[in-house]
Amino acid sequence: MRLRNKPGAQERLDSYPQYIIANPAEYKGKWQEVFENDHPIHIEVGTGKGQFLVGMAKQNPHINYIGIELYKSVIVSALDKLIEEDLPNLRLLNVDASELGDYFAKGDVSQVYLNFSDPWPKVRHAKRRLTYKTFLKLYEDLLINQGEIHFKTDNQGLFEYSLTSFSEYGMLLKYVSLDLHNSDFEGNVMTEYEERFSRKGQRIYRCEAKYQ
Amino acid sequence: MRLRNKPGAQERLDSYPQYIIANPAEYKGKWQEVFENDHPIHIEVGTGKGQFLVGMAKQNPHINYIGIELYKSVIVSALDKLIEEDLPNLRLLNVDASELGDYFAKGDVSQVYLNFSDPWPKVRHAKRRLTYKTFLKLYEDLLINQGEIHFKTDNQGLFEYSLTSFSEYGMLLKYVSLDLHNSDFEGNVMTEYEERFSRKGQRIYRCEAKYQ
Repeated sequence: MRLRNKPGAQERLDSYPQYIIANPAEYKGKWQEVFENDHPIHIEVGTGKGQFLVGMAKQNPHINYIGIELYKSVIVSALDKLIEEDLPNLRLLNVDASELGDYFAKGDVSQVYLNFSDPWPKVRHAKRRLTYKTFLKLYEDLLINQGEIHFKTDNQGLFEYSLTSFSEYGMLLKYVSLDLHNSDFEGNVMTEYEERFSRKGQRIYRCEAKYQ
Repeated sequence: MRLRNKPGAQERLDSYPQYIIANPAEYKGKWQEVFENDHPIHIEVGTGKGQFLVGMAKQNPHINYIGIELYKSVIVSALDKLIEEDLPNLRLLNVDASELGDYFAKGDVSQVYLNFSDPWPKVRHAKRRLTYKTFLKLYEDLLINQGEIHFKTDNQGLFEYSLTSFSEYGMLLKYVSLDLHNSDFEGNVMTEYEERFSRKGQRIYRCEAKYQ
């Protein structure tokens, strides 16, 4: 993603503490205090401009969603959507994925979404891919038992890599689609990227992998 | 595959007992007697007209290959190639895949190839797919420990199904290519089908799955 510095982004994030959790470590093990209910919590790691998670939160009012995004210039767009929709079941965290263990305890999260993650195509950058084994361990440490990762990408290399990475980690591949938009999968919510790439006729890959 | 009855096929098969093993049950647990060496044995289930296995046998003289094919009208074409090439490390069996347990003991086989297997696209026919769990059990019962299945197909639905079937069986996906002919995989030997489909610009999918 091409990142432009957005002047005033930090100030804007600071102005909406009801949407952007400023002190997530305080809620480790007790996220129900944030949502004031005990509905399951799904997180999206790398939530970008937030279209996916806003769509999911509207579609599924009995699931709580948390979008994780490091880049301020991007997460402000997600914040704008959230302000407009005022969804009670969606929050955002402006933190690095590698720090998730500081903010979530084992079992806090029921499902992890990864959408159009950076492919880091060079082999020497494999450790940065969000489906690398250290990240799979990180997600496992905050998910419920038998929790799942739902993963979408248009990047063939990242999808091939991720299928083997999930399998090598001991996860079960319970669903694989090699052409999501021409499949019988229902209820798909598209990300900004997904709309753009699929308009160009590019295939979208999707899988669901479960911890065992 | 469109099957035409070939008059005289049975007679032709019977005339070459040195290539087509007429009494495979006799060699269960002692296939080294057939090849007169103890090189590893790889089998292809559904060997069709034999181009893949003839190519593999020429490329790898220290591996023994056995092609399994039920249809006489097809296996005679594999026989023709074998007569022409006279390869000491290749044999054919004109038997049904479901009977493999009658002919091979645990550990007789080091690797199984499945190439462009019948996709059986209807859900009610899933049991007939050569990557259905009963077949995976059958291959496991004749493979060495940690034996592998190497699988190629142009059929998207069969590939999606097979990835989840391997995973659900507890196998490890150690390699996945979603576009074999545009990948860095080396030493690929093409089947007749593969040549035809890839000429049409169709993607070829390939994976390696390992028993654990």
